[in-house]
Amino acid sequence: MASEFDLIYRHLASFGAGPSVILGVGDDAASLRVRDGHELLVSTDTLVEGRHFPVDSLPEHIAYRAVATAVSDLAAMAATPIAMTLALTLPEADDLWMHGFSMGLASAVSDFGIPLVGGDLTRGPLCVSVTVMGECPAGLSVKRSGARVGDMLCVTGTLGDAAAGLLLIQGTSDLSDLPDIDTTEYLEHRFYRPTPALMWCDWLRTHATSAIDVSDGLLADVTHIAHASGVGMQISAHALPLSEALVSLHALDPIALALHGGDDYELAFTVPAGTELPAGLQCIGTVVDGDHVICTDIATTGVSGYDHFR
Amino acid sequence: MASEFDLIYRHLASFGAGPSVILGVGDDAASLRVRDGHELLVSTDTLVEGRHFPVDSLPEHIAYRAVATAVSDLAAMAATPIAMTLALTLPEADDLWMHGFSMGLASAVSDFGIPLVGGDLTRGPLCVSVTVMGECPAGLSVKRSGARVGDMLCVTGTLGDAAAGLLLIQGTSDLSDLPDIDTTEYLEHRFYRPTPALMWCDWLRTHATSAIDVSDGLLADVTHIAHASGVGMQISAHALPLSEALVSLHALDPIALALHGGDDYELAFTVPAGTELPAGLQCIGTVVDGDHVICTDIATTGVSGYDHFR
Repeated sequence: MASEFDLIYRHLASFGAGPSVILGVGDDAASLRVRDGHELLVSTDTLVEGRHFPVDSLPEHIAYRAVATAVSDLAAMAATPIAMTLALTLPEADDLWMHGFSMGLASAVSDFGIPLVGGDLTRGPLCVSVTVMGECPAGLSVKRSGARVGDMLCVTGTLGDAAAGLLLIQGTSDLSDLPDIDTTEYLEHRFYRPTPALMWCDWLRTHATSAIDVSDGLLADVTHIAHASGVGMQISAHALPLSEALVSLHALDPIALALHGGDDYELAFTVPAGTELPAGLQCIGTVVDGDHVICTDIATTGVSGYDHFR
Repeated sequence: MASEFDLIYRHLASFGAGPSVILGVGDDAASLRVRDGHELLVSTDTLVEGRHFPVDSLPEHIAYRAVATAVSDLAAMAATPIAMTLALTLPEADDLWMHGFSMGLASAVSDFGIPLVGGDLTRGPLCVSVTVMGECPAGLSVKRSGARVGDMLCVTGTLGDAAAGLLLIQGTSDLSDLPDIDTTEYLEHRFYRPTPALMWCDWLRTHATSAIDVSDGLLADVTHIAHASGVGMQISAHALPLSEALVSLHALDPIALALHGGDDYELAFTVPAGTELPAGLQCIGTVVDGDHVICTDIATTGVSGYDHFR
C-alpha cells in the first residue's frame, strides 16, 4: 500500500499552480498572495458520506461536488477564488478510488480556477472538507445583511433540479413513468456537478445589496437573508425559474422542490427596485417590511429547509 | 435537540473577533484583512478519533490539540496567526460535549491569538479539521528548502515528552515504577496541549534558513528538510534537549522517544554556522553534504517517523 505522502503527492500536488500561489503543496503551509486593496474571503464546507452524498457515489462526483459547494460560498460573497485546501479522510488508501477522486478534483480545479495548495489525508470514515479562499476588492463583498425594503429578490439559474436529481439517484421517488435518459442525466448532473455562480461576481459587486447561495432550500436560505437584514420577503411561486427537465417530471411537484429542495447552489440575492436584470437572472419576489418569508400563489406549509441536526 | 445553527452560534460564534477580521461567523464566508506587503500562509490539519487522539479523550483536549497542531504549521513558516476555520464532524449534537469542546477552543483562541471565523458542523464519526491562516512580511516566510551545508541544525523546547505522555495516557507503557503525579501531568499535558513555537516567529524570520514542526518525529521531520534542501543532516544524540520529567522515566528510552516520537510540535530549523542562539533554542547537529540523516553517539535502527498509512 502506498504511503500517505506518495498518495498526496502523486494525486494532488499537481493542481497547485495559480496566479495567487507563491508556494503550493509540500511545505508546512502554502503561501498565497492577496492583492493589495482586496479582502480575503474564507469558507469551509464538509461533506459526509451517506449524509451529503449517497453511499457509493463515484469518487469523481464526491470530489467535484465538495469543491463546487465550497466555491459556491465564495460566489455568494461575490469573491473570486484564489486557492483551496482539502482535508480528506478515507477508510483506506485505495489507489483506484484516489485516482477517480483526483479526476473530479482536477475537473473542479480547472472549471472554477481554484488551485489546491494544501491537504491533509487521514484514515477514517469517508469525509471531505474543503476550505476555499477568494478575494474581492475591499468593501465590495456582498453580505446577507444588506437587503432593504423595496428591493427585488432574484435568483440565478433554475431551482429544484438538484433535489429532483437526488431523488432519481436514490431511486426513492415514486415516478410512475421514468424520465428519459437525457432528463435523468441532466438532473443527476445538477446534483453531482453544481455550478457555482462565479460568472455573476462582477455584476453582483456592482448591483446586489445582499446574497446567499441556495444550499438548504430557497425558503430556508432566503430566510437567512431576511433575518440578517431585518426584513421580510414575499416570493411569487409562478416566478420561480424551473427547468424543462424538472417540469417534465409529472410525478413530482416542481414548485415544492424549487422552494424546499436544497443542493442547487444557485444564488438568491437582492437588488434595488428597477435594476435591469441580464438574461439568466430572474426576479422572484420583493423585500417587504416585517420578519416573515411568505410565498404567494400557493399554499405553503412551512418555511424551513434542510437542517443537518433536525 | 438543538438545531445545527443554534449549536454553532451558541458555542462558536463568540470566538471570532480579531484585528484581521472584517466579518466573522454568520455569512457565506468570513472576510479577512491581509496587510499590504504580507504573504498569506494557509494550512489544514485533521484529527481523527482513535488515530490522532485516544478514544474518549476529553472534548476540551481534542479542541485545544486540534488548533495547536494546526497553528504549529504557521509557526514553522514563521507566520503570525490571523484566523482559522473549523470543520467539526460529530456523531450527535451533544450539548455537554460541545460545551467542553468550546472551552478548549476558547482556550486555544486566546492562547494563540487566532479568532475562529468560520465553521461547518456535520453529523458523522468524530473528526476535527482546522484550517489556519497566518501572515508574514512578503518573502520572509521560512521554507523547508533553505538549509545549506554547514548550517547548524537546531530545535525549540524539549523532545520526546508528548510521545511519553501518550504512552502514559494509553497505559500501554510497561513502567515498573509509575511516575509521580506532577511528572505524569506534565507529560500528558505536553501531548494534549502542545505549545506552537509562535514566540520564535520574529527570530526565525531574521535567522532561519529552513524550518519544520516536529509532528511525525524528529528524524522523520528533519528528513523532510534534508530532502527539500538537497542536503544531509548529522544529529548528535547527546545534544538532544530532554525534559527532567522524561529523563526521570527509567523504564523508557528518552533518546529513542526524542528521535522517533512525534507530537511534540516543537520546531526543527537551521541557521547559518556561528549564529548566536538565545536561551530556549538548542543546536543538535549540522547540515552536511549528501542525502542521509544520521544520528551519532547511538546506534539507530531507522529514520522514519509516524506515517498515517503505514
